[in-house]
Amino acid sequence: MIDLRDDERLDYLLAEDMKIIQSPSVFAFSLDAVLLAKFVYVPIQKGNLVDLCTGNGVIPLLLSKRTKGKIIGVEIQEKIYDMAKRSVHYNGLDEQIEIIHGDIKDMPAQLGYSKFDVVTCNPPYFPTPSQDEINKNEHFAIARHEIYCTLEDVIRVSSQLLKQGGKAAFVHRPERLLDIVTLMRQYRLEPKRLRFVYPKAGREANTILIEGIKDGNAGLKILPPLIVYHDDNEYTKELKEILYGES
Amino acid sequence: MIDLRDDERLDYLLAEDMKIIQSPSVFAFSLDAVLLAKFVYVPIQKGNLVDLCTGNGVIPLLLSKRTKGKIIGVEIQEKIYDMAKRSVHYNGLDEQIEIIHGDIKDMPAQLGYSKFDVVTCNPPYFPTPSQDEINKNEHFAIARHEIYCTLEDVIRVSSQLLKQGGKAAFVHRPERLLDIVTLMRQYRLEPKRLRFVYPKAGREANTILIEGIKDGNAGLKILPPLIVYHDDNEYTKELKEILYGES
Repeated sequence: MIDLRDDERLDYLLAEDMKIIQSPSVFAFSLDAVLLAKFVYVPIQKGNLVDLCTGNGVIPLLLSKRTKGKIIGVEIQEKIYDMAKRSVHYNGLDEQIEIIHGDIKDMPAQLGYSKFDVVTCNPPYFPTPSQDEINKNEHFAIARHEIYCTLEDVIRVSSQLLKQGGKAAFVHRPERLLDIVTLMRQYRLEPKRLRFVYPKAGREANTILIEGIKDGNAGLKILPPLIVYHDDNEYTKELKEILYGES
Repeated sequence: MIDLRDDERLDYLLAEDMKIIQSPSVFAFSLDAVLLAKFVYVPIQKGNLVDLCTGNGVIPLLLSKRTKGKIIGVEIQEKIYDMAKRSVHYNGLDEQIEIIHGDIKDMPAQLGYSKFDVVTCNPPYFPTPSQDEINKNEHFAIARHEIYCTLEDVIRVSSQLLKQGGKAAFVHRPERLLDIVTLMRQYRLEPKRLRFVYPKAGREANTILIEGIKDGNAGLKILPPLIVYHDDNEYTKELKEILYGES
C-alpha cells in the first residue's frame, strides 16, 4: 500500500522495475534528470553519492540501479521531499537512499566537507524573474527559478562536498554554458566531459550535460551528440535505450 | 600562366571556380579552414575582413565568394605568403584580396585599431612542444604549433582589430574550448555561436567553430551538430554541400 495525496499518482519509472510518485501540480521529473542519471560516472561497488535539488528523487532512484553506494538526495520543498521519501520507501530502498529535507547551502556543514565521491544536480535553470513574471505555482517557481539556490551555490556546494578526484555532474541550458564552466573552474571542478543534447539532428542544442573532477587536470572531451528525436518525432535508438532499455 | 615553384601544385578549390597553390612539403589547406570560411557570418555588400594566419590564402579566397567586402590575409611565413599572393593573382582577385607578409601581433598598429567588421583565424592548434618533439619541417611546425603566435595573441589581436559589434570567428580543437571562451571574454569578444564538428555521429567532437561579437551581449547558441562522415565513411549531405556545393 502507498499513501498518495491530492493529485499525486504513482508512475512507472521507465525501464527500471520501480515506481515514482509524481503530481501534475507539484512536481514531475523531466527528461533532463533521466539523462543526467545516465550520463554521470558512478562507482559500481561502493561510494558516497549526493543529488542536490533532488525533487521527487528520480535521480537517486535511477542511480540505485547503477551503484551499490549510498545515495543522499536533498530537497528544500517539504511537499516534494515527502514525495521523494515515500517513493524511496515504496521501492524498498530505504537502506541505500536517504532523502534529506534541507537547503543545499547547509549540506557541507551538515554532511561534511570532502566526503563524497559523486555529486549530481539538475538545478533550477532560470535566474530569478521579476515578481510578475514568476511562475504563479510556487512549487514550479522554486524548481525552475534560482529562488533558493543560484548556479553559483550549486557549484560551490558541490565542490565543498566532493573529495579530491570526486565527480560533479550537472544538466543545464546551453545559454549558461559559459557561466557554468567559469564557475566550475573557479570552484576547482575541472570540466572533463561535455555532451550536447539536440532535440533533432538539424536543430540547436537545448540541453548540456557536463561533468567535472575536483582538482582534475585540464582536458575537456566533447562526447558524441545526443539526438532526442528523428525528423518524424520518433525517439532515436539511443533515447529509447536510455528511456526504456530497448533499442 | 602561373609561376609554380618546387613541389607546388595548382589545385581546384572545391566547388568554387577557383584554383589554389598548394605544396605537400610547405602548406596545404585543411578541412578546418573550409569549415571556418563557411561558418563565419559576413557582410554581403561591403565591409572590411581580415584573416589571420592565412596560410595559402584559402579562407580569403573562399570568403570572396560570399562578400563584396575587402579581405586582408596575414601570413608570417614568406614562402607561404608568396603562395597565397600568387593564388590571389591567378584568380584575378587582387582588387578584393590583399595578402600581407607580417606578424599578426603588428597588425593593429599597421592596419589600425577597431577598423574591421570580421576577423577569422585558423590558428596553430598545439602549444609549443619541446625541441625534440617539434615537427622537423619548419613550415609545418610554425603552422601547427604556437611558435610565433599563441592563442592569446590571436584573440587579443582579433579584438583590437574589430569594431564594436564586429565578429571574430575561430576554428580550434575541443581541448582548448575552455581557454578560448575564457580568453574571448577577457578580450571583450562575447561568444555567441558555437558549433561542434563530429567525425561521425557516434564519435567525440574533434573540431569546434566559434564566433563572438566584440562587446556583444551574453547568450551563446549551440548550433546543430556538424557530422563529417556517415558510418560507411561517405561524406554526409551537409559536408558535400560545403565541399562541392552538391547535396
